[in-house]
Amino acid sequence: MPRYRLLVEYDGTPFAGWQYQDDVPTVQGALEAAIRAFAGECGRVQAAGRTDAGVHATGQVVHVDLDREWPEDTVRDATNAHLRPHPVAVVAARRVGPDFNARMSARKRHYLYRIVNRRAPLALEANRAWLVKWRLDAGAMHEAAQVLIGQHDFTTFRAALCQAKSPVKTLDRLDVERTGDEIRIHASARSFLHHQVRSMAGCLQMVGAGRWTRADLAAALAAADRTRCAPLAPPGGLYLVRVDYPEG
Amino acid sequence: MPRYRLLVEYDGTPFAGWQYQDDVPTVQGALEAAIRAFAGECGRVQAAGRTDAGVHATGQVVHVDLDREWPEDTVRDATNAHLRPHPVAVVAARRVGPDFNARMSARKRHYLYRIVNRRAPLALEANRAWLVKWRLDAGAMHEAAQVLIGQHDFTTFRAALCQAKSPVKTLDRLDVERTGDEIRIHASARSFLHHQVRSMAGCLQMVGAGRWTRADLAAALAAADRTRCAPLAPPGGLYLVRVDYPEG
Repeated sequence: MPRYRLLVEYDGTPFAGWQYQDDVPTVQGALEAAIRAFAGECGRVQAAGRTDAGVHATGQVVHVDLDREWPEDTVRDATNAHLRPHPVAVVAARRVGPDFNARMSARKRHYLYRIVNRRAPLALEANRAWLVKWRLDAGAMHEAAQVLIGQHDFTTFRAALCQAKSPVKTLDRLDVERTGDEIRIHASARSFLHHQVRSMAGCLQMVGAGRWTRADLAAALAAADRTRCAPLAPPGGLYLVRVDYPEG
Repeated sequence: MPRYRLLVEYDGTPFAGWQYQDDVPTVQGALEAAIRAFAGECGRVQAAGRTDAGVHATGQVVHVDLDREWPEDTVRDATNAHLRPHPVAVVAARRVGPDFNARMSARKRHYLYRIVNRRAPLALEANRAWLVKWRLDAGAMHEAAQVLIGQHDFTTFRAALCQAKSPVKTLDRLDVERTGDEIRIHASARSFLHHQVRSMAGCLQMVGAGRWTRADLAAALAAADRTRCAPLAPPGGLYLVRVDYPEG
């Protein structure tokens, strides 16, 4: 069965997350239904990142096996035609070998977390950023974030339901920058625990608000204790923006 | 009656435009209803730019006269509380003198027109950009755009319903730049004719697609003939981003 790699964009707002579930709308469910509608039977679509309900993607990568070979542009265009009116789009489709696995072959995942830091409610950015009404110090957030870089036991930042075998992960990048009212957190790692980025964003917000110091964040990490985590940042601010694979 | 100047953001998608109309949702209608709900009677809200149906704003400026004086933050927060669930937000409120008029005092208006140039449909940017599926040459668009700079009779780029006394306007800036799949057109002038930015964007798309040359655009301008205009670019790509006034 020929395998295709798809680059996928979606607005996560109307979905109960990436992963297929009976009776609720999911991104995987919408994508598989669209592929079946044009290509007939297909295997399960596997994704690099199983994003949660309300989380967005501009650079999700998935693979799927089709019954027969189609031109790459046909896979993209026909899937998109059947995806309507869901806010999901196949940006690119490429024929790949049977060794390519969107999840297992991924070398690095890049997430963006967006905060809008102002008093007024969100109009254009509703469900697309976290509105924080008190003033945040993005410089302090960035400085504190650096204590999380490297290999650590990230149990503090891990959902109770996380299925990863080990809580030990290596965080490669956690940068915080402000442009006007917007604060952007850039997080990169080979892989993340369930809820890890939103957990880290929630803790960084505490630092930005002056309620936690850099030392408090380091202590929360060292405790390896989920109860030491700040409240989870809401899903609408999170975007899976890119996944890297060997040979580009 | 104390006068307030409001900085307003909105998602234009669900509205029949800025200007109040009976029986259809408008931004002006939503804003006036919210102000009345907290402050009692108020005058008509007047805006710097009367945006069309589906057009967005990140930097609309309006003024309104209230029955009595309120703290600026109260005007902002109370109006926002009553605006829910409309995608309209008062970002800032400031007490101004009776000479300030959001429309008449404006010295420059800045618009952004966004094009996404790719084959795949829009997911996150649906209703927020114009999807153009054929390849556009942004450099050629920018170069051609410069023929429109300066004082001209813009009849070619003017809606039939435009109420301006004269079709002569001075265009200060019309820059086109590409970042990845996105093409941004930046337009600035003291004032614009009705549909002028979307008319210019429609013509620039013809240039980008190679169907018009720079000379064709110049000839369309010189003709001062509405029938020489390319089809209007759709409203969802247009944003009123800033309005300048004397003394900043």
